[in-house]
Amino acid sequence: MAMSNCSANLALFLTGAGNATGAASMICDQFDSVSNQFLDTGFAVDSTYLLFSAYLVFAMQLGFAMLCAGSVRAKNTMNIMLTNVLDACAGALFYYLFGFAFAFGTPSNSFIGKQFFGLNKLPETGFDYPFFLYQWAFAIAAAGITSGSIAERTQFVAYLIYSAFLTGFVYPVVSHWFWAADGWAGAARGSNHSVLFNSGVIDFAGSGVVHMVGGVAGLWGALIEGPRIGRFDHAGRSVALRGHSATLVVLGTFLLWFGWYGFNPGSFTIIDKSYGPSGSINGQWSAVGRTAVTTTLAGSVAGLTTLFGKYLQTGHWNVIDVCNGLLGGFAAITSGCSVVDPWAAVICGFVSAWVLIGGNMLAAKLKFDDPLEATQLHGGCGMWGLIFTALFAREKYVNQVYPGRSGRPYGLFMGGGGRLLGAHIVGILAIIGWVSATMGPLFFLLHKLGLLRVSAEEELSGMDMTRHGGSAYVYNDEEPGANEAGNGGVNSFMLRSAQNKVEPGATVPAQV
Amino acid sequence: MAMSNCSANLALFLTGAGNATGAASMICDQFDSVSNQFLDTGFAVDSTYLLFSAYLVFAMQLGFAMLCAGSVRAKNTMNIMLTNVLDACAGALFYYLFGFAFAFGTPSNSFIGKQFFGLNKLPETGFDYPFFLYQWAFAIAAAGITSGSIAERTQFVAYLIYSAFLTGFVYPVVSHWFWAADGWAGAARGSNHSVLFNSGVIDFAGSGVVHMVGGVAGLWGALIEGPRIGRFDHAGRSVALRGHSATLVVLGTFLLWFGWYGFNPGSFTIIDKSYGPSGSINGQWSAVGRTAVTTTLAGSVAGLTTLFGKYLQTGHWNVIDVCNGLLGGFAAITSGCSVVDPWAAVICGFVSAWVLIGGNMLAAKLKFDDPLEATQLHGGCGMWGLIFTALFAREKYVNQVYPGRSGRPYGLFMGGGGRLLGAHIVGILAIIGWVSATMGPLFFLLHKLGLLRVSAEEELSGMDMTRHGGSAYVYNDEEPGANEAGNGGVNSFMLRSAQNKVEPGATVPAQV
Amino acid sequence: MAMSNCSANLALFLTGAGNATGAASMICDQFDSVSNQFLDTGFAVDSTYLLFSAYLVFAMQLGFAMLCAGSVRAKNTMNIMLTNVLDACAGALFYYLFGFAFAFGTPSNSFIGKQFFGLNKLPETGFDYPFFLYQWAFAIAAAGITSGSIAERTQFVAYLIYSAFLTGFVYPVVSHWFWAADGWAGAARGSNHSVLFNSGVIDFAGSGVVHMVGGVAGLWGALIEGPRIGRFDHAGRSVALRGHSATLVVLGTFLLWFGWYGFNPGSFTIIDKSYGPSGSINGQWSAVGRTAVTTTLAGSVAGLTTLFGKYLQTGHWNVIDVCNGLLGGFAAITSGCSVVDPWAAVICGFVSAWVLIGGNMLAAKLKFDDPLEATQLHGGCGMWGLIFTALFAREKYVNQVYPGRSGRPYGLFMGGGGRLLGAHIVGILAIIGWVSATMGPLFFLLHKLGLLRVSAEEELSGMDMTRHGGSAYVYNDEEPGANEAGNGGVNSFMLRSAQNKVEPGATVPAQV
Repeated sequence: MAMSNCSANLALFLTGAGNATGAASMICDQFDSVSNQFLDTGFAVDSTYLLFSAYLVFAMQLGFAMLCAGSVRAKNTMNIMLTNVLDACAGALFYYLFGFAFAFGTPSNSFIGKQFFGLNKLPETGFDYPFFLYQWAFAIAAAGITSGSIAERTQFVAYLIYSAFLTGFVYPVVSHWFWAADGWAGAARGSNHSVLFNSGVIDFAGSGVVHMVGGVAGLWGALIEGPRIGRFDHAGRSVALRGHSATLVVLGTFLLWFGWYGFNPGSFTIIDKSYGPSGSINGQWSAVGRTAVTTTLAGSVAGLTTLFGKYLQTGHWNVIDVCNGLLGGFAAITSGCSVVDPWAAVICGFVSAWVLIGGNMLAAKLKFDDPLEATQLHGGCGMWGLIFTALFAREKYVNQVYPGRSGRPYGLFMGGGGRLLGAHIVGILAIIGWVSATMGPLFFLLHKLGLLRVSAEEELSGMDMTRHGGSAYVYNDEEPGANEAGNGGVNSFMLRSAQNKVEPGATVPAQV
Repeated sequence: MAMSNCSANLALFLTGAGNATGAASMICDQFDSVSNQFLDTGFAVDSTYLLFSAYLVFAMQLGFAMLCAGSVRAKNTMNIMLTNVLDACAGALFYYLFGFAFAFGTPSNSFIGKQFFGLNKLPETGFDYPFFLYQWAFAIAAAGITSGSIAERTQFVAYLIYSAFLTGFVYPVVSHWFWAADGWAGAARGSNHSVLFNSGVIDFAGSGVVHMVGGVAGLWGALIEGPRIGRFDHAGRSVALRGHSATLVVLGTFLLWFGWYGFNPGSFTIIDKSYGPSGSINGQWSAVGRTAVTTTLAGSVAGLTTLFGKYLQTGHWNVIDVCNGLLGGFAAITSGCSVVDPWAAVICGFVSAWVLIGGNMLAAKLKFDDPLEATQLHGGCGMWGLIFTALFAREKYVNQVYPGRSGRPYGLFMGGGGRLLGAHIVGILAIIGWVSATMGPLFFLLHKLGLLRVSAEEELSGMDMTRHGGSAYVYNDEEPGANEAGNGGVNSFMLRSAQNKVEPGATVPAQV
Repeated sequence: MAMSNCSANLALFLTGAGNATGAASMICDQFDSVSNQFLDTGFAVDSTYLLFSAYLVFAMQLGFAMLCAGSVRAKNTMNIMLTNVLDACAGALFYYLFGFAFAFGTPSNSFIGKQFFGLNKLPETGFDYPFFLYQWAFAIAAAGITSGSIAERTQFVAYLIYSAFLTGFVYPVVSHWFWAADGWAGAARGSNHSVLFNSGVIDFAGSGVVHMVGGVAGLWGALIEGPRIGRFDHAGRSVALRGHSATLVVLGTFLLWFGWYGFNPGSFTIIDKSYGPSGSINGQWSAVGRTAVTTTLAGSVAGLTTLFGKYLQTGHWNVIDVCNGLLGGFAAITSGCSVVDPWAAVICGFVSAWVLIGGNMLAAKLKFDDPLEATQLHGGCGMWGLIFTALFAREKYVNQVYPGRSGRPYGLFMGGGGRLLGAHIVGILAIIGWVSATMGPLFFLLHKLGLLRVSAEEELSGMDMTRHGGSAYVYNDEEPGANEAGNGGVNSFMLRSAQNKVEPGATVPAQV
């Protein structure tokens, strides 16, 4: 923004004045100062925008927790909520220690980052703390998706292991590939590097990086574990195991919707940037808004389509179906949300609903049991989202959002040729390959070691009773198990799940 | 902000310098550039403020969903939540296609807008995507209000019809009247137009445009449907049909409160505007803050007043009453929140509580059944809000918020004469008339066609079982209906509400 | 930002030009105008940041409500939620009338503020409406903490009295001491005053001012009331009285986490401030982000530590424990969040978990019953937080966040000597002394007057039935009490808790 050679040029113009050099330097210094103040203001504005976006993305973790809780049976509620809380907690520690470094630690190589371990060297321009917080909130989402796929039958220790591995390594590597300046596959790769088909993958907010990663990991977990007991009857027919609270499902879905406004429009990471000419409405602020609109439309249309599609299939109007449809639409638009027009988002959502419906039919046919439909929803619709972007990305938007590379391809149906589609197919295959090659063996190993699935008895009684201290709900205070001894007690190593009120003479060690 | 004739004037002053014209033009160009950078920064700041406000308003839809769910009986929870989700989804599609155009598509006529169909021609200054998103979030609120009034007894198909009509046409027309630059009734009408009593209606965030519209529509729906079975006993006495979860009511109320900070303070749509002199604390940022404060005080005082008022009436301290009181206070202050002092907001809330208590007494007397008290709360308190504004609007604030019209009237009790009150009475009558003339006949037609109310059997068993796939809650996994066949199955057109676990030999088509 | 003597100096340089004075004054006026526009933009940016932070802090009240509701037995849900709603409502009125004046009404004395009663004289720079809203949201948190300590056995009238006293007087005085420019104990005290050990207490967002105040008040309330019936059996052993919904506990905890991003990073109150040099990444925006990161890490590590710590103690993995651990970590980091490094936050959280575990063991040993663990969590971890800050505060950060006092001490372990620790010990003792001296006698007086604790019968049946209009939940519409007469009726002074459906001939007055 500052003028180059301001003083020299101005001094020349002012020749003849008492002190032309002094005048010029005084004026130009002041312009430099103004220029720097704009930088300061920009940092403040962009940080505000990015931090509050990060908070919204974090709220998605609450949304996941409620969605998951409502979608499982009451007897596994404590279990699934614990995984959601731990995704955030353990994710914070691991992502701070090395996940962020693996993902965004540039300069590095194309495969994995190597700066900023333990937030060493922060802040730098472009790598300030708000950016870390934002990326952490993304990282914990992927693990949350996977825990849905293997809900209601997975040992807690297996969760601890796969979740750490996924958040701390598998996901950061993929995000490096697609989002770091030196990742091999991303559309934001520096213009001095060669990229896939002179394009790279436009996975703006992570249909692939987040949703497919979580969904493919979930696919392997659910496949290796097999379906929950009772999910398919002995004639092989699909039997819905209803979640215990539709209210929680709706609460969770709305919170995810709310948080998606941080996820997609927030992914610009800066908002105070003109697309030129300066002083016009054309700037990133407008693109951020458009991204919020495309996100809204894709989700909404997917929800509506699912409503009617499932009504034709089942004969009733089901809010749970609409919620899943909505989320599928969001997962799909997440890739292209910043580079497509609102009308294209409508198409994205419409197709997305059928991808999800078809995926669920296929899953039932194959006796694949994913309690949250996470594989179909995040994996399937996420994949559709990457393809959609390669078809509908608009030239003008692509060049605004990913500037600095001339002749960049855009959507096939928008006249941009097939190179973007080529890049996206490579990207899809790379994600599937990488996640399968890492998470598949891990789940298989856990399986072989007997650490993956709980026993049939435990599955039937529910994990809350056996592992997590008792039922999530006590509506009637008189029922057995409502009260129990030992909470916070000094020596009480007994299971809280004993579910019996302490009586005199019981074997529980007395509190001194 | 840019100086006019900067170069010419400065060159004159610099006569005698080596190149006075060059120096002047160089300096002035730089000032022009600074000026444009302020515009850019302003766009970024205002968009951030407006987008996050829009997200908060959207969160109100979640608040509505939880409030409605908690306020109905468990057997209709799936039904009411589906309407809340669809308000957002269908609203997004319709408002994108034509609702926004009807509302804000200027230049147009005084009655209805006609630009921006399908977001054609966006972005324009003042009509950028964040503004659309914000207005969409408003539009879906009105339909949500109405669905509360007719809860627990309305056919789903009737909902689909009235909701589309209300969000897509009835509401946008009213918002055009009051909020578009060429609407006939609004205080923001361009200064070159004549307006009602040289004033127009100050309905800043929509006590009338949103709350009365929703409430009056609900009034007609509830009136034509009649009360729920059992709501009045055969001696004609009022029998409360308790909602199934006070926790959800409190959750919903707090979320609505949270979202109201987007609704009211967000309605300025821009925050980076000085009221002068530049560099002082006097600016829209302060007015936005004051609006948050008046909103808080009106709701809080209304809640407190309701607590004690209902205690005198019933002898107990009821959190549900406080919640409704709070929301009534918010609905009331929504009109004048930006143009009254905090002390006036206290009065607004105090009176609002009695309007609601009185409205509920009247409703009981007239055997009018509105399960969410939406008619009384949004309609009644919304109307009081418009009158309140006409009494307490302060001159200074009115001229800051609605600049450019000299001699504009303000609150009657603040010495501003009766013209504002006159305008507001016209506005109130116009809203009642328009909504009654459109929604009244629609509900009546649906009633005559047998599409409005469910059968008595269905009402007694609850709509969730008959239409929406089963109960919202399954706390005991062993109970019949907890599991059922056909979810996601290929050929399963059976009702999920069959509520029986599939057994071998059942008539359900086997999954291949 | 404006240059001093700009015109005079520039005119001198331009001597010889046609009108040197005119040119200089024209140019300098324009720079002054630019300077003022930066002030305007700064107001807009900072207000946006502060207002949305305030909204987040407000969301914590919802978090509290859900956490409290889930942590008590179903029969007291209406009661506890009412207190949470009223904290916000009554707090708004009292804080508007005098609480804010007591806290921040400077210029005043070191003990209590005396300006801005009823928001008189607002806006002023630094005391604009967003600042009031933000501080109100803080004020209502303290009362919420205390209501957790005395849950399930306290008369509603006692709540009304202590809550008004705490929010309206006790808390504002403490916040004046530590946060107002002329408070005697605060690190932000004007540089022309002498302060504790040339330092003052660094209680950035209120580990002491908010959490210890709430916790110590709760300590006295819980101590004077004694434990709930059944909390310790007749052998003196601790018997956990399980809360009725773990889902609500997780919901509440995540909402509190979400809101803490307003609480801690928001406490800077302005974000658009460079730490210099201008134009670099070093500014308050970065410190705000770092504060969000330290907050996240401390809570997360505390949650993780609690998970494993409690597992060793009890043998199961309990999400409720993790939630409490998380909140303890947040309460602890709240004091030093802005002045410590992320690695130090990890230590803060780790120790905090053991403080909470130890506190709970001690409470069980002493037969102290605090249903929400509020004394241990907010009081204990809050106190640890103040000590932690005195050990780990980093010199550079301390001088950026609390500028203008040379030779200011910092963390003992960071080489900053023991003066900060000395100041913090004084601060801790002052808080304990003040709250004990005010709230202790109040609770004792209420106790002596028979206004504090409900009767044993009432405690056993639950307060919802006896005082608050009936149970919070009606899952089965056929059960007695699902419907009842008199809601909103004209003359119905009967208890809604009668829990019987009206029958013909009942004694309920007929509605006319």
